Amino acid sequence: MNAQDNKASIGLVTPQTLTVDEPLPLDCGRQLPRYELCYETYGELNANRSNALLICHALSGNHHAAGYHHADDKKPGWWNKCIGPGKMIDTNRFFVVCPANLAAYGGSTGPGSENPETGRPYGPDFPVITVADWVRSQDVLRARLGIEQWAAVVGGSLGGMQVMQWAIDFPQRIRHAIAIATAPRLSAQNIAFNEIARQAIITDPEFHGGRYLEHEVVPRRGLMLARMLAHITYLSDEAMRAKFGRDLRQGKINYGFDVEFQVESYLRYQGMSFVNRFDANTYLLMTKVLDYFDPASAHDGDLAAAFAPVEARFLVVSFTSDWRFAPERSREIVDALVDAGKRVAYAEVASELGHDDFLLTLPHYVNTVRAYLSHVAEEIDA
Amino acid sequence: MNAQDNKASIGLVTPQTLTVDEPLPLDCGRQLPRYELCYETYGELNANRSNALLICHALSGNHHAAGYHHADDKKPGWWNKCIGPGKMIDTNRFFVVCPANLAAYGGSTGPGSENPETGRPYGPDFPVITVADWVRSQDVLRARLGIEQWAAVVGGSLGGMQVMQWAIDFPQRIRHAIAIATAPRLSAQNIAFNEIARQAIITDPEFHGGRYLEHEVVPRRGLMLARMLAHITYLSDEAMRAKFGRDLRQGKINYGFDVEFQVESYLRYQGMSFVNRFDANTYLLMTKVLDYFDPASAHDGDLAAAFAPVEARFLVVSFTSDWRFAPERSREIVDALVDAGKRVAYAEVASELGHDDFLLTLPHYVNTVRAYLSHVAEEIDA
Repeated sequence: MNAQDNKASIGLVTPQTLTVDEPLPLDCGRQLPRYELCYETYGELNANRSNALLICHALSGNHHAAGYHHADDKKPGWWNKCIGPGKMIDTNRFFVVCPANLAAYGGSTGPGSENPETGRPYGPDFPVITVADWVRSQDVLRARLGIEQWAAVVGGSLGGMQVMQWAIDFPQRIRHAIAIATAPRLSAQNIAFNEIARQAIITDPEFHGGRYLEHEVVPRRGLMLARMLAHITYLSDEAMRAKFGRDLRQGKINYGFDVEFQVESYLRYQGMSFVNRFDANTYLLMTKVLDYFDPASAHDGDLAAAFAPVEARFLVVSFTSDWRFAPERSREIVDALVDAGKRVAYAEVASELGHDDFLLTLPHYVNTVRAYLSHVAEEIDA
Repeated sequence: MNAQDNKASIGLVTPQTLTVDEPLPLDCGRQLPRYELCYETYGELNANRSNALLICHALSGNHHAAGYHHADDKKPGWWNKCIGPGKMIDTNRFFVVCPANLAAYGGSTGPGSENPETGRPYGPDFPVITVADWVRSQDVLRARLGIEQWAAVVGGSLGGMQVMQWAIDFPQRIRHAIAIATAPRLSAQNIAFNEIARQAIITDPEFHGGRYLEHEVVPRRGLMLARMLAHITYLSDEAMRAKFGRDLRQGKINYGFDVEFQVESYLRYQGMSFVNRFDANTYLLMTKVLDYFDPASAHDGDLAAAFAPVEARFLVVSFTSDWRFAPERSREIVDALVDAGKRVAYAEVASELGHDDFLLTLPHYVNTVRAYLSHVAEEIDA
């Protein structure tokens, strides 16, 4: 554990598992006959069970959002900077629940789990799932925890899409919706990046049609390329310039194909380390979840119509340097909510790093969400 | 030949080859003992040899810039829309010369040529070349053609970098410099995209360290991914939205990994067709030429100091929707030229398609360059 992080950290946490033996119907027409949801909770559920806050994770996230699993862990959960006692999402006031989504890496039922129909791992046979499927499974968790209504559902990026889906599909179950650095649907360019990542993985000879584990290999090259590409979209051009510029690794040009520029070194490291902590089938499924999300599609593209059932109050947050899901995309959400006559607050945070800013602690960002959640907590206490 | 294109086309053209038996010294410290430059010319050289205009091509270009090679050719040269009688680059007024650069695909000496030291193809042993190396070889062609000074040197993207290098390295040999949709150096993000393309190619098991031809294979997967990725940077987000949006190939979602969205279909087609008309070693070398270009680096990053020797007058053109080399990058060039006391005109063309606009015929773009070149032609005639 990092001493400084630890000071404001929730400390050691233990994942829990919910086993559901009822089948989960899926948008693709198939169903999961049974499934497990791995989740963590931070803070205490109050007496009238009204202070529960759901965290929805993004592409590479899972249930381990904050704290440490072991005293010698080097890294805390993926959103540890923002979740903890006195932090943006204050575990002194909220009972925070973070499940790993179906098919996410490292926890809940996914491509690595046993397919009860075959007794073998699902692998590429794991169903193609959707944001709505995830939300349906999260609602099962909600009920099992005995929570009538989430005080808030909070998520960034792909997590923000789940927030919107919650507000649409379970309007009675969500009091506040906090959607950060997200979009109401992917653009053609977003889909194009995902498609290249998928092709990198699928065309890797060690992918073996998704049955790589049975061949005792991993499509390392494909997964590495997918992650390198994703990293470009997570950082702004300016952030890359500030972080690496054209700095040379060895101080001079070598006229060869080894690493010359620092940015190459960074990307290769990011790509290679990802291979050891992620699964290729999961990556493919996650990109599909992103591509398919489009709540307006059932309403002839009318997002305001899609938001008609919403009862939750929204806070939408975007970052000016985010080019993956730029502020314009957040304003589409805000405009549609306004058109639908819903209550929405919007903050556009001046930032430099890009999409990754949602994981960090820019003061304008942290103060905005903290202030909003403070009002939510006061409502609960009142 | 396309009937409509043909109407204003220069018609059939025949490539020529210059063989140079003197060695060409290279920035990397090696030399090419002998080399061939393939080139095409359009229009007529005037009596006092003053109307010669050099075209510099970009990453995937070559000597075939305009016209057709055969009467049954389906596609003309890569810049046929802009070069021809009465076109933006008017072959009625200029003697247009377009060489294929060293290592470019399909013409001049490159990785596929015989290495005189071994009697085998160079393959991965072809030297890592630079924009300055190219310009040095183009100057040999200039001298052999008996041209004292280019009336203008014109290029877009990587071609624009050659234009700048000409003006810096051979100030007496270039009267006008027209640099389009280019940048004074790559950003970290630009380099990052190139590095992913290189890793896609190099990690393809069929790359065989660059000796794929000897194994009678081609690193198709890597080259396909590299091209797909490049295409994202050639088109603006808006253009992709306008062209593809979220249109589904089969009108409905199929919950699988076959093509779902039109943009996926487009990218796969672009990637796969590129494999049949390009070479992996060439692609790697081209990305390195881009990465290394940085005339300011020899002057502590001071681009104005790099431009000190310039005598040419500049026209710089950028496109508002180009995010590969955005207008800001062109303004860096313009500002440095102004700081260095050089003559420069600048046009920022409102556009929608992105980087590819430089190959097309937006009226503001065509009229600006045509008007500029008209003044150049009048100078010559005077």
